[in-house]
Amino acid sequence: MNLNQTKIGVVGATGVVGRELLSILAARGVPPSLLRVAASSEASGSTLSYGNAELILAEASANFVAGLDLVFLCAGADVAQRLAPVARAAGAIVIDNSSAFRADPRVPLWVPGVNDPAWSGESVIANPNCSAILLVRALEPLRAAFGIDSIILSTYQAVSGAGQAGLSALWSQTQARLSQSPEPPSVFPESCAFNVFSHDSEVELDSGVNGEERKIIEETRRIWGTPSLAITPTCLRVPVERAHLESIVVELGMAVSVDQVVLTLSQGGLRIRDDRARNQFPTPRLATGTDDVWVGRIRPDPAVALDGRGCTRRFALLACADQLRVGAALNAVRIAEAIIARGR
Amino acid sequence: MNLNQTKIGVVGATGVVGRELLSILAARGVPPSLLRVAASSEASGSTLSYGNAELILAEASANFVAGLDLVFLCAGADVAQRLAPVARAAGAIVIDNSSAFRADPRVPLWVPGVNDPAWSGESVIANPNCSAILLVRALEPLRAAFGIDSIILSTYQAVSGAGQAGLSALWSQTQARLSQSPEPPSVFPESCAFNVFSHDSEVELDSGVNGEERKIIEETRRIWGTPSLAITPTCLRVPVERAHLESIVVELGMAVSVDQVVLTLSQGGLRIRDDRARNQFPTPRLATGTDDVWVGRIRPDPAVALDGRGCTRRFALLACADQLRVGAALNAVRIAEAIIARGR
Repeated sequence: MNLNQTKIGVVGATGVVGRELLSILAARGVPPSLLRVAASSEASGSTLSYGNAELILAEASANFVAGLDLVFLCAGADVAQRLAPVARAAGAIVIDNSSAFRADPRVPLWVPGVNDPAWSGESVIANPNCSAILLVRALEPLRAAFGIDSIILSTYQAVSGAGQAGLSALWSQTQARLSQSPEPPSVFPESCAFNVFSHDSEVELDSGVNGEERKIIEETRRIWGTPSLAITPTCLRVPVERAHLESIVVELGMAVSVDQVVLTLSQGGLRIRDDRARNQFPTPRLATGTDDVWVGRIRPDPAVALDGRGCTRRFALLACADQLRVGAALNAVRIAEAIIARGR
Repeated sequence: MNLNQTKIGVVGATGVVGRELLSILAARGVPPSLLRVAASSEASGSTLSYGNAELILAEASANFVAGLDLVFLCAGADVAQRLAPVARAAGAIVIDNSSAFRADPRVPLWVPGVNDPAWSGESVIANPNCSAILLVRALEPLRAAFGIDSIILSTYQAVSGAGQAGLSALWSQTQARLSQSPEPPSVFPESCAFNVFSHDSEVELDSGVNGEERKIIEETRRIWGTPSLAITPTCLRVPVERAHLESIVVELGMAVSVDQVVLTLSQGGLRIRDDRARNQFPTPRLATGTDDVWVGRIRPDPAVALDGRGCTRRFALLACADQLRVGAALNAVRIAEAIIARGR
């Protein structure tokens, strides 16, 4: 069996992740006849373009999932909590993009290519947080080759993490600012127009850590099976549409040269853009629409002396990827493909 | 003597820092009769508004500086190299905003309130790099109270660091992107519209450190007199007009509580915006046009366990300030005021 012989349902098909997922399925050759799409009850009955076809939106329900092999949940945690057990009971594999099951020990939290043993036949699989996916995919080759002792990162996160409402806020507030009009209110606590602000997730009152940072810490530890790995994240949003960038300082388990780091990342399937002479490094605009994890600015930490062989344990680098694809829809599709490849 | 009894010259008066400096001098009550302004030779003879007055632009020359008490150089390093010795020979105090003299051991690199003993009567004073000023002003209360062992920071830098051309690039490229028109070329190697890119300063081919990062390392060490302080900077530009933000992880010389950190920063004159319940923290938009250094998101590093008293040596925080004021023109004016206060 392969992906385009599978009966697939997409819940939350009109959202930014749902639409990205459909575009990936279309590119994979999944025929419209095998697809069912659902959205909110208000949208039910209206249509959605899929390649040259039109799909009719259904309501997400027990009826919707009946007979499906595979259900992608691209909605909120509440929808996932309600629908995942129903779909599972109906015999479908469920891949959930929300945070509903990411901390549930019975549900694999899976980044294919990073922690494939996590899945051993479970019917519900959690797709990790976008920033966590980017981090583990960017650093996995280094972890596998050299080990990782600690990570300090600051994020430059796109507004698409807040969905279509985030994108609309960026465009409308920026347009208002350029034309010196009053800025419309938005989904964010601060203006996005020519601004940077701390991630809009809830902040823990006692620790000061916000929800996005907590997800990075907990999900990264869980994906790598390193429950006490030292991770220090600071998550901010920037006026960028849909690719996240992370500025990372990583301490490896052994001293290596910068050439070894670059070679290891390159052989690990990452897209290297690291031209010091031309000042060309990863950017969100370049990463947008691509399936790659981009890395660059790879350099030894200038605060740490190199040993006699030119090696050190501490490196700084940038990582960047399309948050809607690499950080969400593409990882979900890769999970489905990995399950199908294993013969389920 | 005070600032508004001083004969002042401003070179580079039409640039973004020059204009900001003039607005600060006007707010300080410096009368136009005591001011001379210079710009490029092409602009010579045209006029510049100053409060209700009009100033006539001269050419920057030996003639221009003759008879002045104080000359602010708000131009490039080449102009500074040429004009500073001439102004000094003519008896003026020179405050230079360029990088020309920042590494010169004979020239004080001065952030008033941080390293006041640096000046002992010298006629030429260097105004530090904007990102270095923000960093030392944000952390000085902690350094003075507890000591600092290491700093890791990622910057979110405004385009105004590249002058009016940077601002124009941001506005025109963003407008083009919103209207789906081709983006005009700009002063930056990457598009600024809804993008993030590594700082546009030259990258050292051997170390991978860029010019802005090198300035932060060297100038911070020089200002604090700590020539081997561990500093790991990553400098990026974001689509923001004129305030820089820095995401900082600092290791103090002793373990303290987060309350002690907040109190120390607050008593040190910083503007605290740190409302976890309402998700209100420093932003570039809030800092723009203000004379404050804003700090917030002050929290213990979640990767490090607190001791029995709830203390740790490692903290994360955000710092933000108007790059043209706090990071440039205001610091220059504060240098002048400090010199005058000491009776020169």
